[in-house]
Amino acid sequence: MSKEFSHTLKIYYEDTDAGGVVYYSNYLKYLERARSEAIYTLGLSNKGLLKKYGILILVKSCNIEYLKPAIFEDEIKIISTVKSITKTSFAMDQKIYKKNQMITKANIHLVVVNQKGKPCKIPEILNEGFK
Amino acid sequence: MSKEFSHTLKIYYEDTDAGGVVYYSNYLKYLERARSEAIYTLGLSNKGLLKKYGILILVKSCNIEYLKPAIFEDEIKIISTVKSITKTSFAMDQKIYKKNQMITKANIHLVVVNQKGKPCKIPEILNEGFK
Amino acid sequence: MSKEFSHTLKIYYEDTDAGGVVYYSNYLKYLERARSEAIYTLGLSNKGLLKKYGILILVKSCNIEYLKPAIFEDEIKIISTVKSITKTSFAMDQKIYKKNQMITKANIHLVVVNQKGKPCKIPEILNEGFK
Amino acid sequence: MSKEFSHTLKIYYEDTDAGGVVYYSNYLKYLERARSEAIYTLGLSNKGLLKKYGILILVKSCNIEYLKPAIFEDEIKIISTVKSITKTSFAMDQKIYKKNQMITKANIHLVVVNQKGKPCKIPEILNEGFK
Repeated sequence: MSKEFSHTLKIYYEDTDAGGVVYYSNYLKYLERARSEAIYTLGLSNKGLLKKYGILILVKSCNIEYLKPAIFEDEIKIISTVKSITKTSFAMDQKIYKKNQMITKANIHLVVVNQKGKPCKIPEILNEGFK
Repeated sequence: MSKEFSHTLKIYYEDTDAGGVVYYSNYLKYLERARSEAIYTLGLSNKGLLKKYGILILVKSCNIEYLKPAIFEDEIKIISTVKSITKTSFAMDQKIYKKNQMITKANIHLVVVNQKGKPCKIPEILNEGFK
Repeated sequence: MSKEFSHTLKIYYEDTDAGGVVYYSNYLKYLERARSEAIYTLGLSNKGLLKKYGILILVKSCNIEYLKPAIFEDEIKIISTVKSITKTSFAMDQKIYKKNQMITKANIHLVVVNQKGKPCKIPEILNEGFK
Repeated sequence: MSKEFSHTLKIYYEDTDAGGVVYYSNYLKYLERARSEAIYTLGLSNKGLLKKYGILILVKSCNIEYLKPAIFEDEIKIISTVKSITKTSFAMDQKIYKKNQMITKANIHLVVVNQKGKPCKIPEILNEGFK
């Protein structure tokens, strides 16, 4: 598993806090945007996955390390890779860069569930797309 | 119409921006919390209104003036009053105070809709409660 | 005054609420992103305006109308125009479109202040850029 | 180290997403509110710690597990305990409960820094308060 998904975004006022840096929970928003963009890159969408395959992707855990702060008007890049896949879940590495410096890194465990919240098989198209 | 609903809350890190003050869209969150609390004060809930009466309350417009900033660790109080009611909509005045100084004021127009989004009659219990 | 600034963005999970639509305060975030992007279009930045001219731009009031909801995975476009300028303040019209339908419109009053929060003269470069 | 700090809060519309549950990054806001409230319980404040001791508390890492979702209008309780302290940093366990069921748990590493961002000695009053 080594396909790399890249997503770039800008830091706006809404993202910062009184410490002058990005508020710590907002990085999880960026990670989620990057995961959604990875899905779009595969020609899929979250709504499409729900409609066509009856599935949702839920975050089970997130282990995030804050190395350096991002600040107002920074541009940051998120590199996401799927590290492992089981029948119903997968683990992602997501790293956030400012210029060429890694400022945040995270390991995310996600599970694929049906509309009742029960884990279910990852659609082949997603399985293949992540490789 | 003159019943006053009061709600007090604290400003946390998440609320502030790099300017050192509360980010301007967050005041709309406080106004919504205060409106939800007004409903709880009446012994109702948003989920209950949906379940029992099949209604949702939507914001149609918001006219907000920023007079003074709130900052990190401030305690603020929101005073909400219903200024006018029609069959399917109502207008609220919401004022935010820091100590005894008004720092923000807003006029909000809300409409009561059914689950298809069509305006519908305000339940009597809400109509009476707001008076 | 008629220069039009355009900014396009996507709706992510973070933007939505349990009603299935964009939470009403989040539109103010989009309006602020669009205003920041307008400044970038002029070759300026908020940090640069502070550093070079010692100014900040504050929102004094916002009058926003919600016409139609945006939903998860929508792409929306914000068209911003400066409607009037005084020595120290300006008024903007901001309209949000989903495909070609206007879904939200807002009038925003902004004031230019120095680092002590006192209104001060709008830098010529901004004044010219907005025309 | 075993002092328990408790903080209770309500889930508002702003907290939820289109999945009908609390958006995953918002739990980090609640954890931060609970940490701020722990400081207030000790008779301190973040602003006071900065003014009197010249220190800020930064999150270095956060390992969070999502067990069950919280939904709109839920009331949740956060129990926070300091698990270990070094000269300049400490680790907290934070558990979120809905009624008596644990729905989220997190381990947070925090570091005390001066205004230049350099790690510095935890003030005795904080050290003692956490025990």
